[in-house]
Amino acid sequence: MAGPVQSIERAAAILRLLASGPRRLGLGEVAASLGLAKGTTHGILRTLQNIDFVEQDPATGKYQLGAALLHLGTSYLDVNELRSRSINWADALAARSGEAVRLGAPLEGKVLIVHHVFRPDDTLQTLDVGALLPLHASSLGKVLLAFGSVPLEPAVEAGLEAYTRHTLADPERLTRALTEVRELGWAAEVQEMITDEAGVAAPIRGHGGLVVGAIGVSGTVERICDSQGVPQPDLVTQVRHAARAISRDLGAARW
Amino acid sequence: MAGPVQSIERAAAILRLLASGPRRLGLGEVAASLGLAKGTTHGILRTLQNIDFVEQDPATGKYQLGAALLHLGTSYLDVNELRSRSINWADALAARSGEAVRLGAPLEGKVLIVHHVFRPDDTLQTLDVGALLPLHASSLGKVLLAFGSVPLEPAVEAGLEAYTRHTLADPERLTRALTEVRELGWAAEVQEMITDEAGVAAPIRGHGGLVVGAIGVSGTVERICDSQGVPQPDLVTQVRHAARAISRDLGAARW
Repeated sequence: MAGPVQSIERAAAILRLLASGPRRLGLGEVAASLGLAKGTTHGILRTLQNIDFVEQDPATGKYQLGAALLHLGTSYLDVNELRSRSINWADALAARSGEAVRLGAPLEGKVLIVHHVFRPDDTLQTLDVGALLPLHASSLGKVLLAFGSVPLEPAVEAGLEAYTRHTLADPERLTRALTEVRELGWAAEVQEMITDEAGVAAPIRGHGGLVVGAIGVSGTVERICDSQGVPQPDLVTQVRHAARAISRDLGAARW
Repeated sequence: MAGPVQSIERAAAILRLLASGPRRLGLGEVAASLGLAKGTTHGILRTLQNIDFVEQDPATGKYQLGAALLHLGTSYLDVNELRSRSINWADALAARSGEAVRLGAPLEGKVLIVHHVFRPDDTLQTLDVGALLPLHASSLGKVLLAFGSVPLEPAVEAGLEAYTRHTLADPERLTRALTEVRELGWAAEVQEMITDEAGVAAPIRGHGGLVVGAIGVSGTVERICDSQGVPQPDLVTQVRHAARAISRDLGAARW
């Protein structure tokens, strides 16, 4: 059985490095960040450039991500069954609730947003598709953690960043909260990532019953929660209904 | 100087293959399509799976693109200077013209849509970002061909597909049309890719004056063209104005 191909893993590490910040990076910076020799790094970068996975700025010689990744990324969306099965339900949830709807799946210890329906009003909104949210500070992420879609330990080991004073940055409090999520069947997040914002999410199960993603609504606290700061029961019901409908479309048995 | 890294090139070929169709592919299909041994192909696929570049369907064992590509693709958009410098101008062009605006850059002998502003009305529209358009049958592509941003020969050799009876599928007619585009400074496409649809585009120049992309409007023929089927002069002026404004922002000298 063939082992992992080292040069491909190194190429991926370079791409992740370039994706991790807004700056272009020079050959020396890339090599030093990954602990690779300059010659090795240059060979990989040149190959990545040939296939349009990276671009080199002609003025500075620095590297950035390339155009081929955009096409591959949107092609991923086209074949993603979780997303394609969810589109109509997500539209319906946004229309019925009047809130923005997002769909998340696990990636690299975070939540990858694979679909986003804007809140149905005329406000300016930014498309979150492709963005990564922290597991412990988002309702989508708490669902993925609570239902075993991603393991908790690496997230705790990586450190639970406190985005606001409400973030569950303490492993014990987070563990208790996740137990409650499992009991309730849905997760809330109230001002735990961004002040004045909140979200509610529920698990999507695939064929066999495993949780493969989460769907949720998010918006200002005053829209998502009642006057006590608790998520509005109607909204929770709508989110759970959408999650169950998508799960059935994905082949999960009723549970 | 290091040569290209073969395993990375093969990995990219597998990803392009998976992106080229809507179907998941089995190990045998991937190996046969690329003329590789099954063992080699399996080693690459397993590595790509470890880094979330491909996913394997647990039920069928077939492969599809993975979630990491979505994050890399949207990260590409965040660092793309052509796009970031164009966003405000594209919004203004859409608002002023009342038409959908798209921005294209060359990729793999096609036009990659890197930005798309919907027509400012309430109609249902699909985001084209990440899509690839043919060079010879789109106004964006004709601009890239006419101004040397991509070479003509490979496009001709790959075959000029006739999408409609108006497509410039004959190399000589296409060459004449491109000469005219260079003389006029802008390109039109009228029912050459989709019946009843038309577009107008103009070149965006980067630092040093090279054409690095194109911006254009597109829509139904009756919106884009006058009663003679010729693009409306006002619209052409607005597109060219936006292209020049973006070029200046990118550091191109006035020309």
